[in-house]
Amino acid sequence: MIDSPNPSFISVSWLGEWTGRLRLLDQTKLPLEIAFVDCQAVEQVREAILSLRVRGAPAIGIAAAYGVILGLQPFISNARVDSHVQSHLANAIDSLARSRPTAVNLFWALDRMRKVIEGHLAAGPSTVEALGARQLQEAKLIHDEDRQMCRAIGKFGASLIRDGMGLLTHCNTGGLAASEYGTALSAFFTAQDEGKQFHVFVDETRPLLQGARLTAWELMQRKIPCTLICDSMAAQVMREGRVQSIFVGADRITARGDAANKIGTYGLAVQAKYHGIPFYVAAPSSTFDLKLDHGRDIKIEQRCEAEITEAFGKRTAPHQVPVYNPAFDVTDAELVSALITEKGIIQPVNSDNIRRLIG
Amino acid sequence: MIDSPNPSFISVSWLGEWTGRLRLLDQTKLPLEIAFVDCQAVEQVREAILSLRVRGAPAIGIAAAYGVILGLQPFISNARVDSHVQSHLANAIDSLARSRPTAVNLFWALDRMRKVIEGHLAAGPSTVEALGARQLQEAKLIHDEDRQMCRAIGKFGASLIRDGMGLLTHCNTGGLAASEYGTALSAFFTAQDEGKQFHVFVDETRPLLQGARLTAWELMQRKIPCTLICDSMAAQVMREGRVQSIFVGADRITARGDAANKIGTYGLAVQAKYHGIPFYVAAPSSTFDLKLDHGRDIKIEQRCEAEITEAFGKRTAPHQVPVYNPAFDVTDAELVSALITEKGIIQPVNSDNIRRLIG
Repeated sequence: MIDSPNPSFISVSWLGEWTGRLRLLDQTKLPLEIAFVDCQAVEQVREAILSLRVRGAPAIGIAAAYGVILGLQPFISNARVDSHVQSHLANAIDSLARSRPTAVNLFWALDRMRKVIEGHLAAGPSTVEALGARQLQEAKLIHDEDRQMCRAIGKFGASLIRDGMGLLTHCNTGGLAASEYGTALSAFFTAQDEGKQFHVFVDETRPLLQGARLTAWELMQRKIPCTLICDSMAAQVMREGRVQSIFVGADRITARGDAANKIGTYGLAVQAKYHGIPFYVAAPSSTFDLKLDHGRDIKIEQRCEAEITEAFGKRTAPHQVPVYNPAFDVTDAELVSALITEKGIIQPVNSDNIRRLIG
Repeated sequence: MIDSPNPSFISVSWLGEWTGRLRLLDQTKLPLEIAFVDCQAVEQVREAILSLRVRGAPAIGIAAAYGVILGLQPFISNARVDSHVQSHLANAIDSLARSRPTAVNLFWALDRMRKVIEGHLAAGPSTVEALGARQLQEAKLIHDEDRQMCRAIGKFGASLIRDGMGLLTHCNTGGLAASEYGTALSAFFTAQDEGKQFHVFVDETRPLLQGARLTAWELMQRKIPCTLICDSMAAQVMREGRVQSIFVGADRITARGDAANKIGTYGLAVQAKYHGIPFYVAAPSSTFDLKLDHGRDIKIEQRCEAEITEAFGKRTAPHQVPVYNPAFDVTDAELVSALITEKGIIQPVNSDNIRRLIG
């Protein structure tokens, strides 16, 4: 698959040189429609992140990195990078950083772009042309590194999958959420490449149904046997003995191993613990935020009420009903059997082991 | 409220004498529309149960009891109850019994109707008129007893609610699911009558959103402060310390106290256990099936895939995706802090205590 990726799996791509444009697979339209959005301005990228046309922590980071190039494009006819251009770029980065608060990959990728710009300009005066080329080089590097990290995560993750297993996952962590193979789903795709047979239960993942719309679609495209369930059915499927391991992704992991991920992950981890089922969190090192120790310090994005009350084109709750809609929750390190990263498997999950591999 | 019930809360009522008709509040239309369905044939009642126009274990039992009267109405011009009429009535009862498999109140109510018919005819030849009157008397008795049981459940349940508590519930167990006050929600309504202040978190209850559509509506109608959440958010709300007790209903409870209820209840009970939060199951004695010991022997209804893949008027999953859609799960007695019945509170939950109070 790496040699001839199906274009419909490519969630983020850059077309042309630095003067080109960012192409995003519009994930809000899946699985019924495969449509792309071409972004030619920072504000368009910000809107795409905000409205989840591009989502998944690594994919958001990559899209934002490319987005910074769009911040330079308006100055294409300027010869030199002056303070006005620099201030405009800084604003572009700030604006992209404010699009979503929880996934750390966004800030990580924007920080890299900021440092590359600073480093480039610190070396002496630069043409807009040269800075644009440098930015594109770095964004492509971030993209390519993510692809390699996803492949490495897949190798480590697949080592935990045995023939005949029932697996369960929440939200979407595949090629749509990252590069090519994704994070948690990369373990499944790699296990399939290795010829292993297994079955995946897919949590639909309310409110926005990334499991039903995206994960089930990716698994079906790759002909991996799967069954769609409501989130509330996961415990029952575990009780029936049909799940031997659970794999999820993460949007931010702290120094002690607490992992923020799509709302519902924490409850799933509690149920896994009760049933004695291993609970694995797969993420690249760009997802670790070692400045934070405890998960309670992770900022959790609150999203709009309509996602719950009328998510599917039809009002399904009383008007004016109060709603609580956190987009993420935090799973304590104690509930995580292992962290699967591109650098290896961290088990048991604790500060020392994380620092040793990632820090 | 008992003296002047709001007609929009009356989920099941009988209009007129035994030659009258059964009026059901069409719960599939709530909360956006308050519409009633008048049933004049057994098949209509069966369809209404099957398609969840009437739902909730006690309400299904009451509707089915009235439905048996409709089975006699075609013979209104016959003078006597002969073997043809009897066989027709037996078929009507069998047909209603096949509508849904899990809630035991349905079979319990139909058994009562069957025995009343047999008892009436065993006393000697009867006119159709006299049998009709006797059937209506019994159905009304079932209905009235349920009303009283719900009130008694509410009194016992409210004794567990203290001022300032955060409560959480799953699915709908209010006046729509039973008579007037309902079962688990009866505890809330009674606590409100007693002047207690509390807040209710309402699981939306996928796939059919009885929590969002019905429970939130009932609570708002009664001005009880509530917050709607997705099922996957319940663990997070518990973790935030905002829930002090969980109240749910049941569709069938075995001799040892295993309780079948809406899918998602079991997972919620596991999460409650992890957080040390009391988990209460409220149900009338008609919900107990003492012939069954273990919950694994309860037949679990499997419902259609479309409830998950296109429940809200829009396809939200890939075509041909395999789906698992059990309508119920079973919560082990060990996870239930107490059973709240009209006869008292059973705690700890075990065979001896259940037999003593119910058996």
